[in-house]
Amino acid sequence: MSAPPTIYIISDSVGDSAAQMAAAAASQFSAGETNIQRLPKASNIDQIADFIQSHLAENGGEIVVFYTIADPRLRAQLHDYVEDKPVQAVDLIGPAIEAIAEVTGLKPKGKPGLIRRTDKDYFNRIDAMEYAVNHDDGRNPEELKDADIVLIGVSRTSKTPLSIYLASRGYKVANVPLAKGVTVPTQLFEIDPRRIFGLTSDPVLLSSIRFKRLGNAAEVAGSYANIDNVQEDLDEARMLMRRLGCIVIKTDKRAIEETAQEILRHYEHSFASGEHD
Amino acid sequence: MSAPPTIYIISDSVGDSAAQMAAAAASQFSAGETNIQRLPKASNIDQIADFIQSHLAENGGEIVVFYTIADPRLRAQLHDYVEDKPVQAVDLIGPAIEAIAEVTGLKPKGKPGLIRRTDKDYFNRIDAMEYAVNHDDGRNPEELKDADIVLIGVSRTSKTPLSIYLASRGYKVANVPLAKGVTVPTQLFEIDPRRIFGLTSDPVLLSSIRFKRLGNAAEVAGSYANIDNVQEDLDEARMLMRRLGCIVIKTDKRAIEETAQEILRHYEHSFASGEHD
Repeated sequence: MSAPPTIYIISDSVGDSAAQMAAAAASQFSAGETNIQRLPKASNIDQIADFIQSHLAENGGEIVVFYTIADPRLRAQLHDYVEDKPVQAVDLIGPAIEAIAEVTGLKPKGKPGLIRRTDKDYFNRIDAMEYAVNHDDGRNPEELKDADIVLIGVSRTSKTPLSIYLASRGYKVANVPLAKGVTVPTQLFEIDPRRIFGLTSDPVLLSSIRFKRLGNAAEVAGSYANIDNVQEDLDEARMLMRRLGCIVIKTDKRAIEETAQEILRHYEHSFASGEHD
Repeated sequence: MSAPPTIYIISDSVGDSAAQMAAAAASQFSAGETNIQRLPKASNIDQIADFIQSHLAENGGEIVVFYTIADPRLRAQLHDYVEDKPVQAVDLIGPAIEAIAEVTGLKPKGKPGLIRRTDKDYFNRIDAMEYAVNHDDGRNPEELKDADIVLIGVSRTSKTPLSIYLASRGYKVANVPLAKGVTVPTQLFEIDPRRIFGLTSDPVLLSSIRFKRLGNAAEVAGSYANIDNVQEDLDEARMLMRRLGCIVIKTDKRAIEETAQEILRHYEHSFASGEHD
């Protein structure tokens, strides 16, 4: 199957939401990388017209343009501008804003980029990212009590990327590695077990991932990746998880986002009323 | 101004793209947190009907539903289901998929969740996150040569969150702290300077952020936050950046996403043809 076309994104903010939606839509056509070209911080129709014209010229056919523009006037101008051109233009945010306006009766502000700047969540997310980095892999165990969520698991159960992903959603996440015969920080036993999530995975899969990671060092340090050792790591981890009374989550055959979603379902059920978004 | 209503998200995948778009749209109405409720992994119309019915019942008025559903049949069923109900339903991904189909002539796969699983970018992003964590704050300087991007800057210039954000886009990012009188790793001088980005900020702002971070410890360790010391840190950093010949980026008064966008503009200009998305 051939690759999808380049997707052109026009935003009066950064264009991240549009890029994510573009990647999601493009994934319905090809497994390859999505080629995305952005015009961020668009502030007037001339800029937008230049961007579209130059890409139309280089492309020679119809092009796909996704746009997220908060200013209703600029949004309408773009809509009018592309009407008689070979452009498939999709307004990603306009209908969403109109739906909220309809239900609330409120008038939208029409100013770009509000999501990042005014959101107190923004600063929570920044803090959470720093927290995750400083509490990765068992660092600073004396501060574990401040974490919203503590992930525990043996090597290669996705602790780090999961921590970072959850941090980018605004949660303070620490992770603690488990391995046979290695003592875990005592603070782990002082935390509400509903904040702790034990990650497990399939031993065969883990063993193969560990071998891959070792590369040339596999022969020397092979015991780390050996299936029996992986199984022993997992068994001891499972015993600790039972002792802690934490929820156990399988991470194999699932994307980080899916595992995170499951963790958050449990977490929100225990602690929060709404979402952290 | 009153808070926007709860936004209900229905997705046959995880719903992250929809949640991001919902937050962007809601930010046009209120500066507060957005209340988002998700139904992820929706696989049939009965599930969707239950979710909508129960929220309609508890809400007592019209509700806002955003949906990202890859399966065209399920998408059509949802569309029909809400038609005679007090629901403002917005199809976030359907028009995007149709636009690509129109331009390419290809038939969309109609299968949910393809973006995370099949994308080789997915694994790059996971690796990049681990790389960023393991190369935060000057860790493992002997591996700096493997980085796509190296961020350098004095304390509180957003090195860590910027590294994580860029990593989540798939770039391998290391960051190295600068401070007056502290020697930087020699490897910094062996890297293509176009890969290095020097972060600076306003000294008054930095000083106030540092004071805030110190909290009760401010009196004891105040020299760290003192404006003269901050200025000296910045001066020495600026000298090093000039010596390296790297691009200097101001981080104050800008969101992480905006600074990242500027860095990527330079980076892509120097090294890449397309986007990393």
